[in-house]
Amino acid sequence: MTRAQLVEQIRIKQSFLCVGLDTDMDKIPSFLHDFEDPIFEFNKRIIDATKDYCVAYKPNLAFYECLGPKGWESLKKTLDYIPADIFTIADAKRGDIGNTSTYYAKTFFEFLNCDSVTIAPYMGEDSVSPFLQFPGKWAIVLALTSNAGALDFQMTADAKGKRLFEKVLEKTAKWGTPDNTMFVVGATRAEGIGEVRKLVPNHFFLVPGVGAQGGSLEDVTRYGWNDDCGLLVNSSRGIIYASNGEDFAQVAGEKAKEMQILMAKELKTRGF
Amino acid sequence: MTRAQLVEQIRIKQSFLCVGLDTDMDKIPSFLHDFEDPIFEFNKRIIDATKDYCVAYKPNLAFYECLGPKGWESLKKTLDYIPADIFTIADAKRGDIGNTSTYYAKTFFEFLNCDSVTIAPYMGEDSVSPFLQFPGKWAIVLALTSNAGALDFQMTADAKGKRLFEKVLEKTAKWGTPDNTMFVVGATRAEGIGEVRKLVPNHFFLVPGVGAQGGSLEDVTRYGWNDDCGLLVNSSRGIIYASNGEDFAQVAGEKAKEMQILMAKELKTRGF
Repeated sequence: MTRAQLVEQIRIKQSFLCVGLDTDMDKIPSFLHDFEDPIFEFNKRIIDATKDYCVAYKPNLAFYECLGPKGWESLKKTLDYIPADIFTIADAKRGDIGNTSTYYAKTFFEFLNCDSVTIAPYMGEDSVSPFLQFPGKWAIVLALTSNAGALDFQMTADAKGKRLFEKVLEKTAKWGTPDNTMFVVGATRAEGIGEVRKLVPNHFFLVPGVGAQGGSLEDVTRYGWNDDCGLLVNSSRGIIYASNGEDFAQVAGEKAKEMQILMAKELKTRGF
Repeated sequence: MTRAQLVEQIRIKQSFLCVGLDTDMDKIPSFLHDFEDPIFEFNKRIIDATKDYCVAYKPNLAFYECLGPKGWESLKKTLDYIPADIFTIADAKRGDIGNTSTYYAKTFFEFLNCDSVTIAPYMGEDSVSPFLQFPGKWAIVLALTSNAGALDFQMTADAKGKRLFEKVLEKTAKWGTPDNTMFVVGATRAEGIGEVRKLVPNHFFLVPGVGAQGGSLEDVTRYGWNDDCGLLVNSSRGIIYASNGEDFAQVAGEKAKEMQILMAKELKTRGF
């Protein structure tokens, strides 16, 4: 999906919501365990209930991999089921030397046909660039994450006061373009989002941490907004596990709609 | 596998060789394509031919994932086929927020029953620690890698001159112990190995980059040695693709044996 297509979807749906498919066998309603593929059955119903309110889905690879080949089948079926006008993010945090990254890129962009994959930048340019060679596909690079451990290395400043996440932004922005690169910027550090926005005014951000992790949508939008919206705000647990009963999909739809309404308000305020 | 068991294997086999199973459908001999599972067939023959000369196998996940569920089946069969006294490394470069890392750990340590997994440390403590909660299992954390991109972020110094890879070593060494944590240190920077050894005298290093990438075994041993050997030196392409004919396994065995003989010399010199 191109940037223009993504922005158009945000306008049409008045939403910049990404629904995180952290689909966990231990957390899905127990009646689904009777189905042949409980993970896909859960995702299918979540997608049916939320697809009008979101512009992206983000399956978290860990939850599929831990089930082995069967998990990969559930993942593939889920991605095939997602409507083509919705952006897909393989949240996989990959990154390795060039030849290996090329194979990861083929996995996510060709075999699974995802629009994007999340990338850990520790190994530098030759670990990121292979993901930038696929037209219409995106690398979403970790910059400033929403977890406690973000403080361990990402905030380390060099002799000139430049922190690691700033260095990642500066360098990575040169390897790709705002048409094939996004950044992960956690909502739990709303002011951090503002600092990131100054460094990369044109890029989209994938923002986890709204909801369960405590970030506020208003703050994220205030600090992260750019002329194309420039934001995909993810919510996983707050939507997909809002109910554990037979009504889980309906309640997920309601939660997604609540988010969409809040987002529409933010978009309208900015004439979008 | 415990550290004592690994060290014992190094003594018995007079080898600290790790064979990298970067098994690529485009590079394996074409006659194997007629088998039901060409990847497993290749690995099985490589393992039969090299198992007496190495103490570890390291499948590179990218080459299995790109084949989808079938690739994961080949990987699982391969890991099940590796003799129990040989250390297994899932070269996966994983790392995510705590709950997600726990699921990755379950994938590699429980579903695949690997002894260890490689970890990218960018997201800090809560992304690494979940891998340290499994008795007899290991996190192998990226410190100073062998690729060109290592210079982009890993060598960045803070105001006191401490570089990122040094900070990763210092902090990570405190999260785990030399009994459950190793570090990736590239052979293409042999002097770098010496600097890393000073910071973490007791840990094992996984050293890629000998052979195809240009590092020398003598330098790696000179700079990286500790009282327990402390080294697993990986070779992938130089062994598994040494021949592309029907004799590929035999030639791989010969190449592995050559490495083992060089290693035995290094070990004997040090009375090991």
